[in-house]
Amino acid sequence: MTTRDDDVIQADSVVIGAGPVGLFQVFQLGLQEIRAHVIDSLPHVGGQCVELYPDKPIYDIPAVPVCTGRELIERLAQQIAPFDPIFHLGHEVTTVERQSDGLFSVQTNQGRRFLAKTVLIAGGVGSFQTRPLKVEGLAQHEGRNFSYRLPAPEAMAQKEVVIVGGVDAALDAAVRLRQEGAPAQRPKRIVLVYRRDVFQAEAATVTAFQRLRDAGHLEFVAGQVTGIETSTEGQLTGISVTDSNGDARVVRLDVLLALQGLIPKLGPIADWGLTLDHRQLAVNTETFSTNVPGIFAVGDVNTYPGKRKLILSGFHEATLAAFATAAHLFPDRRIQLQYTTTSTKLHQLLGLPSVSHRRDH
Amino acid sequence: MTTRDDDVIQADSVVIGAGPVGLFQVFQLGLQEIRAHVIDSLPHVGGQCVELYPDKPIYDIPAVPVCTGRELIERLAQQIAPFDPIFHLGHEVTTVERQSDGLFSVQTNQGRRFLAKTVLIAGGVGSFQTRPLKVEGLAQHEGRNFSYRLPAPEAMAQKEVVIVGGVDAALDAAVRLRQEGAPAQRPKRIVLVYRRDVFQAEAATVTAFQRLRDAGHLEFVAGQVTGIETSTEGQLTGISVTDSNGDARVVRLDVLLALQGLIPKLGPIADWGLTLDHRQLAVNTETFSTNVPGIFAVGDVNTYPGKRKLILSGFHEATLAAFATAAHLFPDRRIQLQYTTTSTKLHQLLGLPSVSHRRDH
Repeated sequence: MTTRDDDVIQADSVVIGAGPVGLFQVFQLGLQEIRAHVIDSLPHVGGQCVELYPDKPIYDIPAVPVCTGRELIERLAQQIAPFDPIFHLGHEVTTVERQSDGLFSVQTNQGRRFLAKTVLIAGGVGSFQTRPLKVEGLAQHEGRNFSYRLPAPEAMAQKEVVIVGGVDAALDAAVRLRQEGAPAQRPKRIVLVYRRDVFQAEAATVTAFQRLRDAGHLEFVAGQVTGIETSTEGQLTGISVTDSNGDARVVRLDVLLALQGLIPKLGPIADWGLTLDHRQLAVNTETFSTNVPGIFAVGDVNTYPGKRKLILSGFHEATLAAFATAAHLFPDRRIQLQYTTTSTKLHQLLGLPSVSHRRDH
Repeated sequence: MTTRDDDVIQADSVVIGAGPVGLFQVFQLGLQEIRAHVIDSLPHVGGQCVELYPDKPIYDIPAVPVCTGRELIERLAQQIAPFDPIFHLGHEVTTVERQSDGLFSVQTNQGRRFLAKTVLIAGGVGSFQTRPLKVEGLAQHEGRNFSYRLPAPEAMAQKEVVIVGGVDAALDAAVRLRQEGAPAQRPKRIVLVYRRDVFQAEAATVTAFQRLRDAGHLEFVAGQVTGIETSTEGQLTGISVTDSNGDARVVRLDVLLALQGLIPKLGPIADWGLTLDHRQLAVNTETFSTNVPGIFAVGDVNTYPGKRKLILSGFHEATLAAFATAAHLFPDRRIQLQYTTTSTKLHQLLGLPSVSHRRDH
């Protein structure tokens, strides 16, 4: 079913994305007797679950009262093992092109190429990138006393630290820098800069921040960063912050941190000629097909009326997409719904020992 | 929010059906701060999972590689516990009527009455009933030597047993009666009657049956039961079986078993003025609303383009229905998607200890 020829991999189905929905897509394709190739830009399976919240508990996976992101992925990996998918990790898909023969040419940034009969995009929100702080002249200071990550505490001990951002990461960093470690190891001054006094953070984080601010342990400056100040040696020494009235002030600093969160980036997917709606792939809810027959989209990357970006919805979408993929691949096959509880055929596919089963309805 | 007044229960939401999807509906309503009343005709929660296949493994619940029907229900019961639903078990809902004030009057066969702002029907396939063998004069023999259930082995020892049916239950009974127990305790003759030689049963069951038939240990008669024979004392002694050519023959018997499987019966739901499509409730895939605003349908009871009767699809449907229910109940509330991983508010609703959480996107 799958052969490798002249470095081009022939495939019935290529799944783009190895997050939870991409993994469950493998399971549902397997039940349809389709073995999947799975491509992901990360070097491991799990997507956001492992990259962003591996140890945080998730409570809304049906019939799993609580599990961490990592546990969820481990459970899914176990579930799909019988279908032995072929993973291509650390590969970002750069192009998907429909050839004149109807096959899709799928190319990765590592030079791997597939000729696929069907493509299932389970790309989540694309890739995550740090939201940049765009101020003229600032970029050249990155890695010196300007950073997008929290430096080691020593680098901030008794220093004037300015944090730019209004998300949890920023407020949380301010609170921790003020509270953690021995007093002598803490910054001398901590200033949070954000455009206004309303934060995009959890209530508990905001409360902790405001309490320290009210007590005078943290400072807050409302406004946007519009410029930088440097010493005669070229060292970054301050930023200009312009408030909503247009008034600018300079905040001096020893260390500047921009913690403005991550922005999802759809990336190359946007260039594959698929219909987009608010930078999501538009699909129908019957087959989860995009506007191109043979290309499906499931999980956070797609949109349709009522769409909620929940993993459990992606599981449903992957299931209907698998039925539609089977119909696309095998137009003559009669595709029936079978139940894993009762179907001898599905038991064989799952690698279960053959036993006599009774079906009462 | 919920009060009891003059034996009428006021409710924001009534969920009809306590199967897996009805239970997960409680969870999703809970995340929307809606406490549910749940009504089920069975005396226990779990629906089909517990009634039909409590000990059979299920393999396609996402992130649950294997669990039995009973385990699935136990997991869901644990998951929804924080939302403390109010169960009304052993109650079959007989009527749902929209009053002039917009509330729904929900009445059970046990005389309980609800005034509900919203109704979520998670009724599965309705109720299961044994498929009857409709032959003139046969009904009066039920409970004597005609039965819809397998009698105790003693009642069939050295008897001529005729089984009518082509589903697993029938073939499986024939095989077991021939193979199990001491030879003297087995029937003297076993005849399976079904309209044709193609069975609606699992391959493994059919193989076992055909093997015994080929060896002469079981007999098979193709045709439909068109009449009965009785002795002068009024005892059932045989059935007339008419084949596809219209030729009839009499099969004599001591014991007659009709094992034709179960038929789902939509029951009273069909009479509530909701739009049906092939005896399923037609819903839209954005809100899972029926044609009556305020009445939603989720799980096996509903239908829409692409519908597959899978529990995991019901979980998705229940989730979108909960968002739509909240929008119906609280038109002024801004209903935002929050994540159980990061939302302090959802943690409070789930009864989790309050902790500071970071949200990085």
